[in-house]
Amino acid sequence: MQSGSNLKNTSPLIPAVDATSNVLMIASSETDANIYYASHFLAPDPFIYLQAHGRSTLLMSDLEVDRARAQSKVDDVLPYSEYESRAKASGVTAPGLCDVLHIFLEEKKVGEWIVPANFPLRYGDTLRKLGHTLITKIEPFFEQRSIKTDAEVQSIREAQVSVEEALDSTLDLLRHAEIKDGFLILEGEKLTSESVRRHLDIALMEKECIAQHTIVSCGIDACDPHNEGSGPLRAHQSIIFDIFPRSNRSRYHSDMTRTVLKGKAPDKLKRLYDTVLEGQLLGIEGVRADKNGREIHQEIVACFEKKGYQTGLIDGRMQGFFHGTGHGIGLDIHEPPRISKTDHILQAGEVVTVEPGLYYPDIGAVRIEDMVLVEKEGCRNLTTYPKFLELE
Amino acid sequence: MQSGSNLKNTSPLIPAVDATSNVLMIASSETDANIYYASHFLAPDPFIYLQAHGRSTLLMSDLEVDRARAQSKVDDVLPYSEYESRAKASGVTAPGLCDVLHIFLEEKKVGEWIVPANFPLRYGDTLRKLGHTLITKIEPFFEQRSIKTDAEVQSIREAQVSVEEALDSTLDLLRHAEIKDGFLILEGEKLTSESVRRHLDIALMEKECIAQHTIVSCGIDACDPHNEGSGPLRAHQSIIFDIFPRSNRSRYHSDMTRTVLKGKAPDKLKRLYDTVLEGQLLGIEGVRADKNGREIHQEIVACFEKKGYQTGLIDGRMQGFFHGTGHGIGLDIHEPPRISKTDHILQAGEVVTVEPGLYYPDIGAVRIEDMVLVEKEGCRNLTTYPKFLELE
Repeated sequence: MQSGSNLKNTSPLIPAVDATSNVLMIASSETDANIYYASHFLAPDPFIYLQAHGRSTLLMSDLEVDRARAQSKVDDVLPYSEYESRAKASGVTAPGLCDVLHIFLEEKKVGEWIVPANFPLRYGDTLRKLGHTLITKIEPFFEQRSIKTDAEVQSIREAQVSVEEALDSTLDLLRHAEIKDGFLILEGEKLTSESVRRHLDIALMEKECIAQHTIVSCGIDACDPHNEGSGPLRAHQSIIFDIFPRSNRSRYHSDMTRTVLKGKAPDKLKRLYDTVLEGQLLGIEGVRADKNGREIHQEIVACFEKKGYQTGLIDGRMQGFFHGTGHGIGLDIHEPPRISKTDHILQAGEVVTVEPGLYYPDIGAVRIEDMVLVEKEGCRNLTTYPKFLELE
Repeated sequence: MQSGSNLKNTSPLIPAVDATSNVLMIASSETDANIYYASHFLAPDPFIYLQAHGRSTLLMSDLEVDRARAQSKVDDVLPYSEYESRAKASGVTAPGLCDVLHIFLEEKKVGEWIVPANFPLRYGDTLRKLGHTLITKIEPFFEQRSIKTDAEVQSIREAQVSVEEALDSTLDLLRHAEIKDGFLILEGEKLTSESVRRHLDIALMEKECIAQHTIVSCGIDACDPHNEGSGPLRAHQSIIFDIFPRSNRSRYHSDMTRTVLKGKAPDKLKRLYDTVLEGQLLGIEGVRADKNGREIHQEIVACFEKKGYQTGLIDGRMQGFFHGTGHGIGLDIHEPPRISKTDHILQAGEVVTVEPGLYYPDIGAVRIEDMVLVEKEGCRNLTTYPKFLELE
């Protein structure tokens, strides 16, 4: 799935964050990958993570303190209620989160705290008023998160195996369908984006992968890259499958797009498909450590333009190749780096997608996406699903 | 599912946010319910929402601009790239998000912007440096979000119907299982937390509800309220089912907990169950507009204490009733208000859970949870699933 982020890959203004940094985070690990990465503890409500003098600490509510001790990977789990009592003893009658945290931060005698760019503004204002210095750092907050360990690559690949198995069983529905009046009919019913997506999402759930917003979009719908698709699928038109679940076991994502068609592809669509495939293979060929992602993106753009596929506003809507080439993937579906018009020097160990697409309402839409692991001399493709337009 | 939040229900320091307020948000609507509530537009990457002089606007990337125009409920959708060009024309060579937003904000000539408490600190710092005034407001950011419309209540109830159907088909697995050596055996296999949870989650997915972290926990596991449960289920021990999916259609949640047992309940556990049920019914009876949630919570605490069930640290772990009585529910699984030791005057239209529990490792764990709609003279129970301990 392509990224529509406007966040820039500018260099951080402060040093890399590592185990020796003084770090403060307040977030729910269910929605914030940085606090999950640092704590390996999953909780639905926001909690406090702190790293100081080489030790990591969670400040947890009574409800979570025992589970955090058993499940998290931090050095210390301390009860929030204890510091709440101390805040009250210090004279605050109804201490809020920052009053409680203040007691805790004072103990640490740290000059500056590094916080993520998305640290909540209200807590930031209050803690600064209480005399603490907070310095924000943009993504990647933990540089290390971009460089996947073998275990992380394995988690991504495991999720990808589930995606490939689920897509295969789903395409069988299309394979077994008959074409009647331009629709795909299986067991007397029209196949729709909704019914096919439900089949895919259930197949993924059976493999403990949670899929949300899976794209099964056909024809004109697919010309809007984030349109999830709705209504009956049609023969002889391209159908985009963009599948990007999170593994419930590991919390890592995978991400793959295939474009297929039931029936016979019009020549113009065949040529569009071949061009996107050529661009995608060119992109994969370009991925290696020390290469600038911007160059990879531009090579694909140039390839498309050379074949006569222009990008821009045509008849009041964006057409052509109007998204980036790829994005990092891991605990978040979209994470740094981006492969786009912005500079980024690729590093060994990054896992990125390569997913160019071309979208023309009068021809159709094609996007093809693999995930690759950046290596010193090239890359390893973590996606093994075949690429074809017409279903056999 | 009970809330472990430390956020206080203190009164906002600024007036209610409504359609006439000047509001700025930057977030992904996939993870931030406020920006979804205001825009009704779902996107995986952060985008900009602005409300000024009575008009609402989205500033969207080229990738999303067409879809946002078709799907969102805002007055205007403007292309980010247009303001990016204007920022460049004004002399910024590589404009970041705040440089682009600055051009846009200047146009609006607004004195103060109200932003959510979780507005990203880095953007806050940068916009203030550029001369803009940002005032944070704590939850509920939109007061109106707490007071559910009929359509919202209907969405919650629809999700709840799916939960009840899914639990019913799941309990059939337990009903049909045989007890052998204390385990539950179905078709030659031991039923486990994992296998039963998978059945439940798939049944929910078939109804387009996305369940994550569904709790199916047995015996000692269940004494830790957020433990999801693992390993074989056991006969004659309580099993907690806490089910809180999001509807894929409406994005609203439902939340229900039932405690059941296969086999014969020991007397001590039966008495624990009856006590929790008594407390829960007392809680539901107490819910009505203008009642203080703290009183409801205290009534349940007193009921448990009167029966001899103490709460606190026993043998180094929290035992008894050590979480709140309930929480608001809607686009977020946990949202204001809380029914807990903190003051909150209930208002008609709020949808809250009532979910006391008692947890003693030497007896077992029991939690029972319904969702109710606060009304002028009482409440309407949105949960219709029966309550029983022993499976027939």
